[in-house]
Amino acid sequence: MPKPIIMDCDPGHDDAIAIFLAAGSPEVDIQAITTVSGNARIEHTTKNALIVAEMAGLRNVPVAEGAGEPLVRTAVTAPHIHGETGLEGPELPEPEKIVEGQHGVDLTAELLLHAEEPITLVPTGPLTNIAWLLKRYPGVKKNIKDIVLMGGGSYGNWTPAAEFNIYADPEAARIVFESGLPVTMAGLDLTHQALAGDEEKEFLRGAGTKAAAFTAELLDYFAGTYRSLFGFFAAPLHDACAAAFSINENVFSTEHLPVNVETSGTYTMGMTVIDSLQTTGKAPNVHVARDLNNDVFWSMLKKALERLP
Amino acid sequence: MPKPIIMDCDPGHDDAIAIFLAAGSPEVDIQAITTVSGNARIEHTTKNALIVAEMAGLRNVPVAEGAGEPLVRTAVTAPHIHGETGLEGPELPEPEKIVEGQHGVDLTAELLLHAEEPITLVPTGPLTNIAWLLKRYPGVKKNIKDIVLMGGGSYGNWTPAAEFNIYADPEAARIVFESGLPVTMAGLDLTHQALAGDEEKEFLRGAGTKAAAFTAELLDYFAGTYRSLFGFFAAPLHDACAAAFSINENVFSTEHLPVNVETSGTYTMGMTVIDSLQTTGKAPNVHVARDLNNDVFWSMLKKALERLP
Amino acid sequence: MPKPIIMDCDPGHDDAIAIFLAAGSPEVDIQAITTVSGNARIEHTTKNALIVAEMAGLRNVPVAEGAGEPLVRTAVTAPHIHGETGLEGPELPEPEKIVEGQHGVDLTAELLLHAEEPITLVPTGPLTNIAWLLKRYPGVKKNIKDIVLMGGGSYGNWTPAAEFNIYADPEAARIVFESGLPVTMAGLDLTHQALAGDEEKEFLRGAGTKAAAFTAELLDYFAGTYRSLFGFFAAPLHDACAAAFSINENVFSTEHLPVNVETSGTYTMGMTVIDSLQTTGKAPNVHVARDLNNDVFWSMLKKALERLP
Amino acid sequence: MPKPIIMDCDPGHDDAIAIFLAAGSPEVDIQAITTVSGNARIEHTTKNALIVAEMAGLRNVPVAEGAGEPLVRTAVTAPHIHGETGLEGPELPEPEKIVEGQHGVDLTAELLLHAEEPITLVPTGPLTNIAWLLKRYPGVKKNIKDIVLMGGGSYGNWTPAAEFNIYADPEAARIVFESGLPVTMAGLDLTHQALAGDEEKEFLRGAGTKAAAFTAELLDYFAGTYRSLFGFFAAPLHDACAAAFSINENVFSTEHLPVNVETSGTYTMGMTVIDSLQTTGKAPNVHVARDLNNDVFWSMLKKALERLP
Ligand SMILES: [Ca+2]
Ligand SMILES: [Ca+2]
Ligand SMILES: [Ca+2]
Ligand SMILES: [Ca+2]
Repeated sequence: MPKPIIMDCDPGHDDAIAIFLAAGSPEVDIQAITTVSGNARIEHTTKNALIVAEMAGLRNVPVAEGAGEPLVRTAVTAPHIHGETGLEGPELPEPEKIVEGQHGVDLTAELLLHAEEPITLVPTGPLTNIAWLLKRYPGVKKNIKDIVLMGGGSYGNWTPAAEFNIYADPEAARIVFESGLPVTMAGLDLTHQALAGDEEKEFLRGAGTKAAAFTAELLDYFAGTYRSLFGFFAAPLHDACAAAFSINENVFSTEHLPVNVETSGTYTMGMTVIDSLQTTGKAPNVHVARDLNNDVFWSMLKKALERLP
Repeated sequence: MPKPIIMDCDPGHDDAIAIFLAAGSPEVDIQAITTVSGNARIEHTTKNALIVAEMAGLRNVPVAEGAGEPLVRTAVTAPHIHGETGLEGPELPEPEKIVEGQHGVDLTAELLLHAEEPITLVPTGPLTNIAWLLKRYPGVKKNIKDIVLMGGGSYGNWTPAAEFNIYADPEAARIVFESGLPVTMAGLDLTHQALAGDEEKEFLRGAGTKAAAFTAELLDYFAGTYRSLFGFFAAPLHDACAAAFSINENVFSTEHLPVNVETSGTYTMGMTVIDSLQTTGKAPNVHVARDLNNDVFWSMLKKALERLP
Repeated sequence: MPKPIIMDCDPGHDDAIAIFLAAGSPEVDIQAITTVSGNARIEHTTKNALIVAEMAGLRNVPVAEGAGEPLVRTAVTAPHIHGETGLEGPELPEPEKIVEGQHGVDLTAELLLHAEEPITLVPTGPLTNIAWLLKRYPGVKKNIKDIVLMGGGSYGNWTPAAEFNIYADPEAARIVFESGLPVTMAGLDLTHQALAGDEEKEFLRGAGTKAAAFTAELLDYFAGTYRSLFGFFAAPLHDACAAAFSINENVFSTEHLPVNVETSGTYTMGMTVIDSLQTTGKAPNVHVARDLNNDVFWSMLKKALERLP
Repeated sequence: MPKPIIMDCDPGHDDAIAIFLAAGSPEVDIQAITTVSGNARIEHTTKNALIVAEMAGLRNVPVAEGAGEPLVRTAVTAPHIHGETGLEGPELPEPEKIVEGQHGVDLTAELLLHAEEPITLVPTGPLTNIAWLLKRYPGVKKNIKDIVLMGGGSYGNWTPAAEFNIYADPEAARIVFESGLPVTMAGLDLTHQALAGDEEKEFLRGAGTKAAAFTAELLDYFAGTYRSLFGFFAAPLHDACAAAFSINENVFSTEHLPVNVETSGTYTMGMTVIDSLQTTGKAPNVHVARDLNNDVFWSMLKKALERLP
């Protein structure tokens, strides 16, 4: 029986690829896709989620809009990385799929409360919805198997210390990291190992589907902004790493460590502070991603793209 | 003509080795050794500086006591790393050398004001004295060639984010890093490459002098605390790296980057926030140490120990 | 036509009196009572709201439970002021009235969205529900006439700088104060003028109703904790002041000033920083309560108690 | 025998009047005047101190320059209050008196170390020198009788929460307040009671000396900036209050309370957090000034001005 997951995202080029990966992987069953303000404003990330879900053939998977703003801060977006719409690059079709009337947090709560087995949450945007869920519906905790998230790391990409997803809603991240639930963090140390250069793009394009072609176009645009902004020669598939781990835990190694989220600090707000040398004496609360198995990762992704329309 | 340097330290096992290294290197001329509260309380670090200077044959080099407390905080010491005296391990002789009557900061200012050429400062403890010097004697700046310090890095050893020297006086570090003076930072990323294991200890002992034998005893003790506390199999010669760079800049590579010192933050106080991905758009202010040339380093150190008594 | 208000509270002795005051005042029409974690845990404040609403004869006014925890922090309660149940002192009947199935925030949103005229919100507990409402339902803003709250002031009662309601959820308070909505703040400077000593208790008891007798018992207990903790000789009717202003704006004078909520600070977290000397140059955002008209206040309260069962 | 005091100041209109007051009061013996960066840059405050000391006939009282910058921050000055020179208004003579060669902190330390009886320090500027003294010369503590300072209060004049002297060097203030020494704080609550309006100026002018005439001119200018900036109808003689207390403790009442200095906080940095309601349970560390005895104050000041040249 496939493993149930709920994807919470802010598509976002790499979120889109994460959805393709999960949609094309029979090991997991996507129960819902919820959206959050992040890479772009909520109306964009919701529309993008509908487009991507439709392209992935997820006809029966509900897409519900979540938080349009961080828990207590005002929204930050990343138009210089993902374009104004959050999914610049390929021509975007108008989706036929329509968004649920229910709020994303309420839908997730309902699915969890009625779940036959605990569900894995896969957040690949700011953690607003997940934190809100835990605050608003404390009773759902027992039905969450674990949380496999993209975010954080030992350095940042939004500031020198903070990765975008954590920076955008650090209080939400703190609530999630301190929730007592099993958390796996695919941070930048890991995701910067999942680099799609020309060779990888060629490989993916080989899947030969419309989704694969769309993915290649996403990667062209995304690689462009990473080259001009960070001097990278290839695009890191951040969010796909989290999705990959929810499908197959062999895709990267982890280390169980104490991690705190900095919510203050002049230069460090939004940092995930990883106690690698165990100087704090605290109990470990996060499975910190370490080494990517590139063979497994790319092969999973190609196979998934082959299975999509 | 040898290059003039002033060593400001809190011996400390690795400070002692840094002094031996500089004392045995004809490329530099130690103008003074000043002490600061750090690894141990100021009365200990001052006494240790006298002992080490005497063993290094630095008869005419003045040793002056500096700040007994951080600029605005209360003192932190590291007895579990360096022992209560700051130099546990070898039997310590009573020094005949006596400390200057003048305060370390005042002596440094005087030397700088009368210097024939700009002097390099080599601080290997908390940066209290250097910051105080810059605040109390702003006129000396033009006579400081550069500052080559041990401290900071992209992760910490005192907390997950902060290295001891910066943690112990973060406001002082901020003043130094923002001074506009050329600063080279030998942080943990670098100094954890300078590991003295059995092979290296054997190599150093081969220098055949009393100083070499003393060094070996220091390393035995220091390796012991690093093994039990951090699971290291060899002792990192932190401070010797800074001294080495003041003698020969080929000993490690550097990258010129913006670095800020975090003085607030719940989990990050004392962190040196390095903008490696250039997300801030700030001008670079610190030469961040990257890769150690182990051959150069160990060979410098062995030669220096051979030249000492 | 009476003015529509929604009361959001954490009863709490003074919250109970605020409800009595509003229930007995024909000038206002209570649309709903919502509860929040504050003086006691949410299950207590909800039960207390039911008891008080029933005693006040509010048969058709819905009582809905709101946030059981602050937006991003863990709950703080005040058992040493209000007792473990939040309403220690009088014998408490088991309420027949039952709580709504709907969440307090959702009920408030629904009432606002269907309101024929803008509604005044009267929060007398931590501002969690109100902030959550503004974040979750940004569209309701235009149907909020204004917010008349008890909280803050130029000094604190929970810490030297922070009053309890603001301290308990400072991020929520910041969201409310920065919302752009008209906010009237009845802080401690004002509410410490509304002191119920023996004379005032006698006067209220003269109302001759069951509610008046219950109020007197509440005041006996409340005065006791204020005497032992703060050395006060009479009980301040904090929350009743906010209710009073929503009924009759002549009950206290206000000054329109810039006010910021401190959410960090070592000693000041939760402080409402009032710019009385206009040093910031910011636009005023809060009507800060200044002088209580005691005659108006006590007479309003007595008349209200006379009208209740 | 007159009581020995050392005045540490940043003249400053009210500092000047404080010096006149002390110089004309036989109850105290000014051992030295030291200067600090504050109302104006250090070169101005030092020159002003020389001018004022000379006008006050303090021929044998040494004037020594102290800290030109706060302990760890950069300098803030108040040209819109005191003018660019710090003493705008009257025509300023060129002083014949010359400044000591010694640093103000060193001079104070020397005086304390050789004192026959403990000395009262009267700081009326930022507390940089006093904190530096305590850090640099911990041994002098036992020779400090007490510290009577102008600064702080329950509200601010530089920001809504912070008074200028504390705001300008909050870390220094924290060190002084936590020093364990007896501290009397004449804050804004007190000094805003010492208002020189037309009547008071007339009264002082009645002293009939050059110093009195100069004082009147200072007050004309100072009252002007207070009127335009804060809407005051009279000039508050802040610093003179501290000097007055060092001469005669009956000039204002005090309350012994716990006070903390906020050195972080978004809106509260530099605030003196006074625990009036005793919510912290901490031991009192500061004698907080409460009510000014205006008769005593103005009469002291007039008599002092009568005794001056
Ligand atoms: Ca994403
Ligand atoms: Ca050291
Ligand atoms: Ca309340
Ligand atoms: Ca002053």
